[in-house]
Amino acid sequence: MIVVMKRGATPEEIQHMIRRVEELGLKAHPIYGTERTVIAAIGEKRDEYRQSLESGPGVAEVVPILAPYKVASREVKPESTVVRCGSLAVGNSHIGMIAGPCSVESEEQMISTARAVKRAGGTALRGGAFKPRTSPYAFQGMKEEGLKLLAAAREETGLVVVTEVVAAEDTDLVARYADVLQIGARNMQNYRLLESAGQTHKPVLLKRGAAATMDELLLAAEYILDTGNPNVMLCERGIRTFESHTRFTLPLASVPYLHERTHLPVVVDPSHGTGHSSLVTPMACAAIAAGADGVIVEVHPNPEMALSDGYQSLTFEQFGHMMALCRKMADAMGRQITINESVKKP
Amino acid sequence: MIVVMKRGATPEEIQHMIRRVEELGLKAHPIYGTERTVIAAIGEKRDEYRQSLESGPGVAEVVPILAPYKVASREVKPESTVVRCGSLAVGNSHIGMIAGPCSVESEEQMISTARAVKRAGGTALRGGAFKPRTSPYAFQGMKEEGLKLLAAAREETGLVVVTEVVAAEDTDLVARYADVLQIGARNMQNYRLLESAGQTHKPVLLKRGAAATMDELLLAAEYILDTGNPNVMLCERGIRTFESHTRFTLPLASVPYLHERTHLPVVVDPSHGTGHSSLVTPMACAAIAAGADGVIVEVHPNPEMALSDGYQSLTFEQFGHMMALCRKMADAMGRQITINESVKKP
Amino acid sequence: MIVVMKRGATPEEIQHMIRRVEELGLKAHPIYGTERTVIAAIGEKRDEYRQSLESGPGVAEVVPILAPYKVASREVKPESTVVRCGSLAVGNSHIGMIAGPCSVESEEQMISTARAVKRAGGTALRGGAFKPRTSPYAFQGMKEEGLKLLAAAREETGLVVVTEVVAAEDTDLVARYADVLQIGARNMQNYRLLESAGQTHKPVLLKRGAAATMDELLLAAEYILDTGNPNVMLCERGIRTFESHTRFTLPLASVPYLHERTHLPVVVDPSHGTGHSSLVTPMACAAIAAGADGVIVEVHPNPEMALSDGYQSLTFEQFGHMMALCRKMADAMGRQITINESVKKP
Amino acid sequence: MIVVMKRGATPEEIQHMIRRVEELGLKAHPIYGTERTVIAAIGEKRDEYRQSLESGPGVAEVVPILAPYKVASREVKPESTVVRCGSLAVGNSHIGMIAGPCSVESEEQMISTARAVKRAGGTALRGGAFKPRTSPYAFQGMKEEGLKLLAAAREETGLVVVTEVVAAEDTDLVARYADVLQIGARNMQNYRLLESAGQTHKPVLLKRGAAATMDELLLAAEYILDTGNPNVMLCERGIRTFESHTRFTLPLASVPYLHERTHLPVVVDPSHGTGHSSLVTPMACAAIAAGADGVIVEVHPNPEMALSDGYQSLTFEQFGHMMALCRKMADAMGRQITINESVKKP
Repeated sequence: MIVVMKRGATPEEIQHMIRRVEELGLKAHPIYGTERTVIAAIGEKRDEYRQSLESGPGVAEVVPILAPYKVASREVKPESTVVRCGSLAVGNSHIGMIAGPCSVESEEQMISTARAVKRAGGTALRGGAFKPRTSPYAFQGMKEEGLKLLAAAREETGLVVVTEVVAAEDTDLVARYADVLQIGARNMQNYRLLESAGQTHKPVLLKRGAAATMDELLLAAEYILDTGNPNVMLCERGIRTFESHTRFTLPLASVPYLHERTHLPVVVDPSHGTGHSSLVTPMACAAIAAGADGVIVEVHPNPEMALSDGYQSLTFEQFGHMMALCRKMADAMGRQITINESVKKP
Repeated sequence: MIVVMKRGATPEEIQHMIRRVEELGLKAHPIYGTERTVIAAIGEKRDEYRQSLESGPGVAEVVPILAPYKVASREVKPESTVVRCGSLAVGNSHIGMIAGPCSVESEEQMISTARAVKRAGGTALRGGAFKPRTSPYAFQGMKEEGLKLLAAAREETGLVVVTEVVAAEDTDLVARYADVLQIGARNMQNYRLLESAGQTHKPVLLKRGAAATMDELLLAAEYILDTGNPNVMLCERGIRTFESHTRFTLPLASVPYLHERTHLPVVVDPSHGTGHSSLVTPMACAAIAAGADGVIVEVHPNPEMALSDGYQSLTFEQFGHMMALCRKMADAMGRQITINESVKKP
Repeated sequence: MIVVMKRGATPEEIQHMIRRVEELGLKAHPIYGTERTVIAAIGEKRDEYRQSLESGPGVAEVVPILAPYKVASREVKPESTVVRCGSLAVGNSHIGMIAGPCSVESEEQMISTARAVKRAGGTALRGGAFKPRTSPYAFQGMKEEGLKLLAAAREETGLVVVTEVVAAEDTDLVARYADVLQIGARNMQNYRLLESAGQTHKPVLLKRGAAATMDELLLAAEYILDTGNPNVMLCERGIRTFESHTRFTLPLASVPYLHERTHLPVVVDPSHGTGHSSLVTPMACAAIAAGADGVIVEVHPNPEMALSDGYQSLTFEQFGHMMALCRKMADAMGRQITINESVKKP
Repeated sequence: MIVVMKRGATPEEIQHMIRRVEELGLKAHPIYGTERTVIAAIGEKRDEYRQSLESGPGVAEVVPILAPYKVASREVKPESTVVRCGSLAVGNSHIGMIAGPCSVESEEQMISTARAVKRAGGTALRGGAFKPRTSPYAFQGMKEEGLKLLAAAREETGLVVVTEVVAAEDTDLVARYADVLQIGARNMQNYRLLESAGQTHKPVLLKRGAAATMDELLLAAEYILDTGNPNVMLCERGIRTFESHTRFTLPLASVPYLHERTHLPVVVDPSHGTGHSSLVTPMACAAIAAGADGVIVEVHPNPEMALSDGYQSLTFEQFGHMMALCRKMADAMGRQITINESVKKP
């Protein structure tokens, strides 16, 4: 890292900071510029000491040079990670299409949706049994009952089940039913939850927090990777900005940016990312064109009657149309949307 | 709420939506404008159904009229809540000054800081024993050992202890030592944690998430209030915006805005809100001028050697200076910074 | 619009506001809800009076129902506008590809770039002769000399010239050389400039300001349309958010959102929208997948030596690769990238 | 500046970049770290070449060390600039209070407001004669007629007149009547306008753009300073963020931040910064507590009938109350709100 001294820093302050850098076990390399002095600090240590150095006497700022994440970095593992799990393959030439209702509401809803997703060519099923809701007065999910309905829908269609876990104490229960654990945007920095999900050794779909930077997202992934679980999918689902015509702002440049920095696959959620069903299909296509390794969308038999997120859910017909367009996009990109392995016939 | 139909909505679509509103147990009141039709939906129900109505045929948008929170609302309880706990009083004419290190690091650090806070006129002590850290490689706190040091510092000075709880499974442990439970910004929407903190019946300091709206903050408070615990302090600690010269952007207009809408007291954190020690004192003064009921700041015996947040921590001397200015501000506003009740002499 | 009264509004305040609405020539329609009263104001008038009503006694807020723009609205003109100008066609089935250097720097640079753009299938040439620069110490453009070089490049290739005008007093000069006038993001609300550009009756490419809402963008377009000039292309070029890994955040959902609300074509600028040359091609593809009617990118013979924006400029080879991918995307979408009309052979 | 090479940069790429730095007339100082090589570039040149270096082979990023502004920098001129103009003094111990209507509407409105401002202790009069309006259908100002009314109000009260100029071609006209020229937020980067305002040698009040960084604001000031006009007041008026409960987000930490970096005085606009009259007074007090050198607010005889911005305008009574509180704040800070020089008695 680079310690930038203030213009008027005294020789004593500069010497003090050189000593501080050396006390941290780093090599100090001062450079005396025409207006300012900077001290390059060389060594294995990364960001940990940056903050304390910033409060040193005569210091203007400390500029980090190395990325703070390690295991997630493409510099460490150049080849792309492919996450495979039953019907789902995500990464490299494989694009996963994960679809289903926001909330599990009933057996009929779940089974009919699972069949529609399978029929249209989806490769995994989503559905929320534990729902983190902004308001304590809103529907909070069917909990274990919902997990059972998801398992039944998997039985029926062979599609693997992706579902959210909202608290570390639920992780074991959810992992008994689910194939892929989803960590929601609100919980991206719930570190106990990240650790408990990692320890199940099931693949984890980690959603970006609405105000998280790319470094924060990758460091959250690092909490999971650190448990020895390599199967992490990152998910861009939109950030909070001044734009109010969409629920969130979906910044697709995250996809190629992340591909440059990490070997982990990147999934895009255009349902939460836009918040309006009419914008979902164009943004699903755009995600694939930007290089996304997967798309996750909300589908409901009757969005108008959905207990949550109806306004951003696709009907079965709209989902079929979306899949047809997405396949064209994938073809044009030389990639494929296919069921990962032979699955039970319905 | 108001259901706004699209310009080209058909009479059938309008009739359909009128029926949908009535099925929800609300009274539908259509208004036929020169360009559009809107349907006012009247009744006790609030936001819950808004989302599903938005996906109805011919609907352009649904505009809520009522605030989604209830118990926190000043419309429900017009008089301001005063949270009192040992040495701390927050609300109405009382301004609480909460100070201490980011992390508990050692007995000497904690005791010396507690004495300095007391000496300068602080009314409560803060310090982190469980630290939620962005990177898994950063110092994660002293945990129970840290809680014991906080209790010892309380013993020494009589100042009540405010400390963060980061997971529902730790709440009982933390509540054994702490007087006030702090919920951090990353956990503002960790609903299990909110509920568990509420159930201790200790006062809760709830920090605003970096991308949370005012409604989301008040709904998070509602999760705590819903447990029957009325002692919630809201804390504005800055939001994430495009500004990079400060760590976060501290929007002090939140203070008078919240005072209009809720009876709960509002505390401001200028340390996290700015991220630079030189900006902390001006923003602490500004917070009080804006009407804040409390200020929470980071103080460290030697910020340069702090294990976390050194760059935004005040020295003892700087804190003394800040307290002197803040007292002048409080006086000018007709408010007071005083120890709530007689406390043990050191 | 809907005037929402406060919960405690008195009958006198409600009567006062009903009278105020009627004084504005609108029909007042009060609705007495269980908790609040709202007054629907019906009539031709739009937003103009909203602000003054908000300061009326007992008023909580005023909610607009109608969009504030008129001529740009798809409700007024349902069929999509196609802007045609020499080699360029933008809108409906036609996708325009506008490319060239950030700044015009020399004859050789301009001619070689124009040939490379033509060869790769670009449909218009861009280049800045008047440069609005953040710093007064940065290169400000070649001005009229640069315009002449652009005209020479058009002569050579037949590609129409798109160039920025930065001040109303330059509009006539720029219009003598340019085919399409570009209004930059910093000038989106420079109303004199918008009017002067409109009055030339040349097509105008209007870039979204970095903090502009969709309504503000459409109202800025309305300033141009109001001069009687129907040939306005909107350009999404990224907004300012907390993300710092890209220069701006490029929210492609603007494209389908705008297509729903306006008949004007929408162009995307992935060069400014991302600020890194490696992200330009994926985002150009994504823009077309999202339905964009055009793409504008920066191309330079030697980005490393460019006088401005080198870090986001494509080389000729990279541009050729981008065009090949974009054509595949356009094909998959059933749209076409072609030269609008027979042009002079080089 | 520091050129950071990618982890896998080859020795040839490193040599190439060292040569590029030297070709720019800078001294190259390579530092070979354990994971990456960085090249410090030492010399007088600042940011100009940063962008082109970033597109060099093997370059990860270029980190600037020096601020891009010069004349505005406190490093260049350590003592604070005090802008004095008739009744107004802004800077150091002097706090200026500028008040008046958003738009000049009539003689009676202007004269009565000017008297009320004077009576309450205001030190300058504001009022818009040329109004930049988001919608072409909104009231655009009384233009020269309005300027005459402002001059009449000055005649009546002795208060200097602050008014906005929106286009370079109007600058001479506006300067004939106004004492201080205001550049609005939308025009912060209208460089011709900045230059023309600077050339009048009248004091300029430069408002921060709603998405402008501090560096961009100071560089815009530099365009004015560069004309030889030293009398620039910076104005924080709020930025655009995800917060929708206020019109803009008012980040008061800008005040102490700017005071550290520049000698120019800083004024705060709590009317535009909040957009609600009930939030104006608390934020005016907070601005002074944060160290602001001035406050500019909207006052109107009857906000409900105002032609613009009524919802954020104070009544005369509210303004009197605000002034009383602000004087207390100024006293507590050891500063003063007084008329700069003896002015004509009304």
